Amino acid sequence: GQEERSMAAVLRGSRYLVGRCCKHVDIALVSTRSMASKTQVGFVGLGNMGNPMAKNLLKHGYPVIATDVFPESCKEVQELGAQIVDNPAEVADKADRIITMLPSSPNVIDVYTGPNGILKKVKKGSLLIDSSTIDPAVSKEMAAAAEKMGAVFMDAPVSGGVGAASSGKLTFMVGGAEEEFTAAKELLSCMGANVVYCGQVGTGQAAKICNNMLLAIGMIGTSETMNLGIRLGLDPKLLAKILNMSSGRCWSSDTYNPVPGVMEGVPSGNNYQGGFGTQLMAKDLGLAQNTATNTKTPVPLGSLAHQIYRMMCARGYANKDFSSVFQFLREEEGQ
Amino acid sequence: GQEERSMAAVLRGSRYLVGRCCKHVDIALVSTRSMASKTQVGFVGLGNMGNPMAKNLLKHGYPVIATDVFPESCKEVQELGAQIVDNPAEVADKADRIITMLPSSPNVIDVYTGPNGILKKVKKGSLLIDSSTIDPAVSKEMAAAAEKMGAVFMDAPVSGGVGAASSGKLTFMVGGAEEEFTAAKELLSCMGANVVYCGQVGTGQAAKICNNMLLAIGMIGTSETMNLGIRLGLDPKLLAKILNMSSGRCWSSDTYNPVPGVMEGVPSGNNYQGGFGTQLMAKDLGLAQNTATNTKTPVPLGSLAHQIYRMMCARGYANKDFSSVFQFLREEEGQ
Amino acid sequence: GQEERSMAAVLRGSRYLVGRCCKHVDIALVSTRSMASKTQVGFVGLGNMGNPMAKNLLKHGYPVIATDVFPESCKEVQELGAQIVDNPAEVADKADRIITMLPSSPNVIDVYTGPNGILKKVKKGSLLIDSSTIDPAVSKEMAAAAEKMGAVFMDAPVSGGVGAASSGKLTFMVGGAEEEFTAAKELLSCMGANVVYCGQVGTGQAAKICNNMLLAIGMIGTSETMNLGIRLGLDPKLLAKILNMSSGRCWSSDTYNPVPGVMEGVPSGNNYQGGFGTQLMAKDLGLAQNTATNTKTPVPLGSLAHQIYRMMCARGYANKDFSSVFQFLREEEGQ
Amino acid sequence: GQEERSMAAVLRGSRYLVGRCCKHVDIALVSTRSMASKTQVGFVGLGNMGNPMAKNLLKHGYPVIATDVFPESCKEVQELGAQIVDNPAEVADKADRIITMLPSSPNVIDVYTGPNGILKKVKKGSLLIDSSTIDPAVSKEMAAAAEKMGAVFMDAPVSGGVGAASSGKLTFMVGGAEEEFTAAKELLSCMGANVVYCGQVGTGQAAKICNNMLLAIGMIGTSETMNLGIRLGLDPKLLAKILNMSSGRCWSSDTYNPVPGVMEGVPSGNNYQGGFGTQLMAKDLGLAQNTATNTKTPVPLGSLAHQIYRMMCARGYANKDFSSVFQFLREEEGQ
Repeated sequence: GQEERSMAAVLRGSRYLVGRCCKHVDIALVSTRSMASKTQVGFVGLGNMGNPMAKNLLKHGYPVIATDVFPESCKEVQELGAQIVDNPAEVADKADRIITMLPSSPNVIDVYTGPNGILKKVKKGSLLIDSSTIDPAVSKEMAAAAEKMGAVFMDAPVSGGVGAASSGKLTFMVGGAEEEFTAAKELLSCMGANVVYCGQVGTGQAAKICNNMLLAIGMIGTSETMNLGIRLGLDPKLLAKILNMSSGRCWSSDTYNPVPGVMEGVPSGNNYQGGFGTQLMAKDLGLAQNTATNTKTPVPLGSLAHQIYRMMCARGYANKDFSSVFQFLREEEGQ
Repeated sequence: GQEERSMAAVLRGSRYLVGRCCKHVDIALVSTRSMASKTQVGFVGLGNMGNPMAKNLLKHGYPVIATDVFPESCKEVQELGAQIVDNPAEVADKADRIITMLPSSPNVIDVYTGPNGILKKVKKGSLLIDSSTIDPAVSKEMAAAAEKMGAVFMDAPVSGGVGAASSGKLTFMVGGAEEEFTAAKELLSCMGANVVYCGQVGTGQAAKICNNMLLAIGMIGTSETMNLGIRLGLDPKLLAKILNMSSGRCWSSDTYNPVPGVMEGVPSGNNYQGGFGTQLMAKDLGLAQNTATNTKTPVPLGSLAHQIYRMMCARGYANKDFSSVFQFLREEEGQ
Repeated sequence: GQEERSMAAVLRGSRYLVGRCCKHVDIALVSTRSMASKTQVGFVGLGNMGNPMAKNLLKHGYPVIATDVFPESCKEVQELGAQIVDNPAEVADKADRIITMLPSSPNVIDVYTGPNGILKKVKKGSLLIDSSTIDPAVSKEMAAAAEKMGAVFMDAPVSGGVGAASSGKLTFMVGGAEEEFTAAKELLSCMGANVVYCGQVGTGQAAKICNNMLLAIGMIGTSETMNLGIRLGLDPKLLAKILNMSSGRCWSSDTYNPVPGVMEGVPSGNNYQGGFGTQLMAKDLGLAQNTATNTKTPVPLGSLAHQIYRMMCARGYANKDFSSVFQFLREEEGQ
Repeated sequence: GQEERSMAAVLRGSRYLVGRCCKHVDIALVSTRSMASKTQVGFVGLGNMGNPMAKNLLKHGYPVIATDVFPESCKEVQELGAQIVDNPAEVADKADRIITMLPSSPNVIDVYTGPNGILKKVKKGSLLIDSSTIDPAVSKEMAAAAEKMGAVFMDAPVSGGVGAASSGKLTFMVGGAEEEFTAAKELLSCMGANVVYCGQVGTGQAAKICNNMLLAIGMIGTSETMNLGIRLGLDPKLLAKILNMSSGRCWSSDTYNPVPGVMEGVPSGNNYQGGFGTQLMAKDLGLAQNTATNTKTPVPLGSLAHQIYRMMCARGYANKDFSSVFQFLREEEGQ
């Protein structure tokens, strides 16, 4: 194992340099990597999402070296055979492919560039994949810092919640050097059903943020519309049907309708429990807002959607599914 | 013809009374109406939409009695055999089924209740179908006024533009007494591919307004999102593909994408010509806003969408397709 | 009295016709009116505002003929000497100067043009002053209907609440024929400290609506700003002081600050009790929105302010002072 | 000079330590500083604002050591006697009181912590005052970095434009250790008429950002309101007068009215030239948005104001005064 890993690292290094020059990867090297593929994989961040993701790596036969700031979060994967180490630097010392899954930008900065961060002990040629949802500008910074150490950083945020993480059905949106995508996809395919290449570093985040901004707009829009229609005397199921066969159709109206009783198997039918929390949506919309501000892009509806989810968080909706905006808007005056 | 019509009117009258009592229509009466079906149909309002609609009635063999405030608008249907009369009252004098297609609420009020309006000479039992897009409150007023004269009023606004009107592929959203729906559908089917019953009078308008409000929100949201993604380095076609396989998907992203080059056969590929004008969308959003205000329904995104289309109208976009909001938001600073 | 009144009515009629022609009022006639000034004044609508207004007329020595749909509302002014009659038509039968103070447009339409409305028995030359806050388009309709009967209608909505009504310190914003303003001012001055002529019929409403829209925007803006500043570590009193000496200054920051503890004698210091209710503000913003929609005027912030007050009404703030938007926005997440 | 400066530096150092302990400054030390007050002052950033500010320091008899990335920007102050050096580190080598005036956060970070930054050669006890308008979080970072080097950092952004800078009438909002405020005020008073202590480091920025957010809201609100009133038939001057005596009053309505012809001596009377550019307002609103996002503070109107100024920048208004939002909203449809 040790030997293979060293070789892989060397190959990585050379491939990386090759990649810089010719943009296309030598077939032979890819084959070598493929042979080396069941070497150890590092994993940093064993929260609600990271835990099932790491388990899926173990299921696919990858030896996992993991760490988390909360030791108790490591127990489950440890029992399943993962080796637990003290900090991200130790992970980087033992594995040349590392996946990170963290709550926000500051955590990512710390895990990569902090005193016990990955980059303190990263091997040349290592592949570092960050699945956190963060500001694409931070992804770019991390990529630049990794490149200085001879490592490759890719951003690969996910779409799909804890359920999809458990069943290995996540969608990964991947940004980074195209010639590394095959290597990244090999690992990510163990945890997701779709692995989409989006472009240069940061574009994975960009795609994730864009999707979620449009999702939030569609969800609030659907909620306003359903509420207005109901008050105007329309039956909610009928209105949903009309919208879904017309130009008002969207994912929130036809797949995840926010009105209780219109669809089955969605959070609106279960008092808005489960699903994608309002607080998480507010976080993603904050990222969208920041990137829009930084790129001087007008996003009037995205910006107002952000404000609405922010107000909801302050009014007790933080942990309800984000489709509960229907309930938030619905409440009748005088009640 | 004359005799049949009289009988039909009588039957209408009785059916109407029956309908009031038992909510369900006697089969025999429906059959009678069906036999009577090629009697004259009145048509008021021969504009861009009304003209092709009236032609489709003629094509289906209905004798048409028509009028319009602009005599020149009547020429085409006259050449195809329609009888042109001076005003709506004259139409009501000669036909007991009348369709109206007018630009806005005041026109509808005038055509029905004005000095030469339909209700001045309407026959008992007449069926009056208004396909204008107006405030549902006005539809209800017209229905009440018609009921006093022993006539039946239904609102049946359309979805689909001039092209759909010409090819008889409109969608009609119909509000009014359920027992009259079959009679209305018989006529509307000549002009549309879908005829959907929505509920009591005004719900046709409600459904139309709701759909268009959500459509506007989705279109602006898609435009903001595509613009943000492009500025963050994503390829527009790739971004559209990602959104369309994810939860950001909506009609504006997958069927009518506002970004030039992403799809073919949509206005964005033709400098935003044709399609559904920004000015018309602004009008519909004004209706949505009014009904929301009147019913005390919060519609924050719908309201902002209204404002954005209003600003666009003031900046030269009035006659461009409503997907031109992408262009409106896209323009780079400093250019 | 009877004689004087008749003469006044005749003079009114002639003055009115004169007014139509020459736009300027004959001095002699004004003098005559002034002599006639303590004839009976009608008053329709004895609610929270109307009651103290009518009392002030009585205090100034005017005989008052009053009515209200709720008989019990009439008791107080009756005890003070007012004559109570059955309906607005009876008021018009007995008085040629009438003031109306009603909750909303439909009430005004009914009181003027309904079956027992003022216009059923209005005398030629009567002066009808409506102090309700309603859609300016309705004011114009009422003015046109009054004109047909030879009477003069003016809109004169008020600024100031129940306190100002009691102390006779209201501000009246008056729209209508300029040559009638002196006559209107004579009466309104008994009830208000400022009587401002705004222009043609409807401009009184316009001024009121405009002021309240800007007030709402300023109040929400001040609340957002104070909240943001506090979260950034600023002392609220200091922040208010800085804003008030800078370009952020507005009535809501320097006279009616929404942050508890910053000022004394304002609703924010009294748990947002008293003052101007959120529900009333939402109503006025609905009027602003409607007039903006009808005149195709973009009002993005006014529109969003409307939505915010609408949401507040649905969340239990309907009867709190409108400065409680600070509390609405302030609530911390996770509490 | 040299000796005095050294002593001053020593005293600064000791005072600083004292300050840490007891929060109040020894009178004797303040007197010493006062004596030492005409020692050299550093100045980094000689743009439109920095240039007149540095000149005012020279006028007050302070020897100035200055630098700017654009050498030509240094000419004027050099001719007036300032010593020009190569970079911020050189400034710090020669002066223990330094003022910086830079366009945005990245410039500030570079000028303080870059390879030739102030902190490379800063003396212990130095007083570093940053008058740039930037994210308060960056101010805090700079303060922490300065503290590590034994120096004191204060944020002191300004209100007022180039005119106020030239005439020494700026307002400074100062954040930082209270015991250093007297020392800071001594210098800032040469350049400004008001120097306000706001609290801990970053609160100067917070106050500035808060004021400008409320200013933007008031300006757009005033513009919407004036436009609506004019379309409803009100004379603009009369409407302004009514607002200004009522609760709609704000700085934008009574001091800087955006409607041409209402006031004299403001940019609206000069085709929106001069004043405070739309682009600069958009920048400040971006900062407000970022701080609001980071502190999870809902700012719905502030956020929409940001979007509106962003759209204006994209439509050719970048260099017009920010009151040109009236013109932006005013444009009539169909023109």
